[in-house]
Amino acid sequence: MQDDTTAPQGDTPPPSERARVRRAGERGHYDAATIHAIVDDAWLCHVAFACPDVLCLPTVCWRVNDTLYIHGSNGSRMMKHLGSGAPTCVTITHLDGLVMARSAFSHSMNYRSVVIHGAFEVVPEADKPAVLHGLMAHIAPGREHDARAPDQNELKATTVLGISLKEAAAKIRNWGPKDNDADMGLPVWAGVLPLVQQRLPPQPDVGMGFPLPDYLSGWMSSTP
Amino acid sequence: MQDDTTAPQGDTPPPSERARVRRAGERGHYDAATIHAIVDDAWLCHVAFACPDVLCLPTVCWRVNDTLYIHGSNGSRMMKHLGSGAPTCVTITHLDGLVMARSAFSHSMNYRSVVIHGAFEVVPEADKPAVLHGLMAHIAPGREHDARAPDQNELKATTVLGISLKEAAAKIRNWGPKDNDADMGLPVWAGVLPLVQQRLPPQPDVGMGFPLPDYLSGWMSSTP
Repeated sequence: MQDDTTAPQGDTPPPSERARVRRAGERGHYDAATIHAIVDDAWLCHVAFACPDVLCLPTVCWRVNDTLYIHGSNGSRMMKHLGSGAPTCVTITHLDGLVMARSAFSHSMNYRSVVIHGAFEVVPEADKPAVLHGLMAHIAPGREHDARAPDQNELKATTVLGISLKEAAAKIRNWGPKDNDADMGLPVWAGVLPLVQQRLPPQPDVGMGFPLPDYLSGWMSSTP
Repeated sequence: MQDDTTAPQGDTPPPSERARVRRAGERGHYDAATIHAIVDDAWLCHVAFACPDVLCLPTVCWRVNDTLYIHGSNGSRMMKHLGSGAPTCVTITHLDGLVMARSAFSHSMNYRSVVIHGAFEVVPEADKPAVLHGLMAHIAPGREHDARAPDQNELKATTVLGISLKEAAAKIRNWGPKDNDADMGLPVWAGVLPLVQQRLPPQPDVGMGFPLPDYLSGWMSSTP
């Protein structure tokens, strides 16, 4: 990721100075459609906070409207700390390829990322069932009508937190190598080694007595 | 990731209290072989730091011996801040599957993660060529002998930082759903929806006049 430059951004301006993409600004995007698409492709985010040591922890995430949600046990240090309104930064990254340039210096990666700034808010008890419904639907659409819904004790034991996607930046690189002119004649193979998150055949639990439900039959062919 | 419990760890104890896995302790591993294997499967890490706002930024990473390296432009805020010895937490996560339990509450994910605590140190000028050689070899073994090596100006413009893997924790979940006994009879499909990072066919740069080199011919079949 060495080919950093500063260039004009897209049509939507950064929502704040801290959300502005600093390196390789031409890769920055601030419109909701771009941000939502990258978020919706992810099941996992990395959450950074200081408690007081800086921590960076992965957790499952899902979007409803313009909010990104995470959840966990009430007893979790992360849930307790973030639920108190502590400052956070939440990042989602998809690695789409390794970019092989003729010079080592110009090697790069193709990726789509979203960096979210702000703080989480606790989802009220009354809203938890609907928001957690969204998690099941994000894992696999249809799952929310099949899996046993959480009972009152399970709901009470779970903290659900949401963070606005308003103060966020997407960053995308999705093109081939960019070598210096002086390197273009070198006898070095250049191109992209693409990567994709592949879905493999569902593995039934031991002793599962019935077939894959309809809503999972398209698992391997559907996109996230 | 709701099936959190506290259980005995593996043979190697946590290197520090802050590195100890708190939630689902039975998933924690602290031996170098486990940590190195997870790190070596990754091209990307998430780096958290406070500058002064908490930030979580993705960047390319690679391992040499017991050190994880990152790099970037001297002008990068992240490189300048981390190069000053600021506290950091670096996390690598591979999502290996979605775990579908009979109850929504018992859904989980299969994953392999490493969380590294500490601070980066600046790699001295004299060591940069060898360490950056390691990055090329990590991207694709053999690449380090093909791509044009960085010249003096490129080396000078690049900051390379290393963080010890001594204070790190691996966390692994790689098993099927664990439902409560009371839910085992529910007519709900349970199992794992596996995910894998798939390599697709190399895409040559526009006008590339020669074939894929030998060291890339196994790209699609090799594991990271």
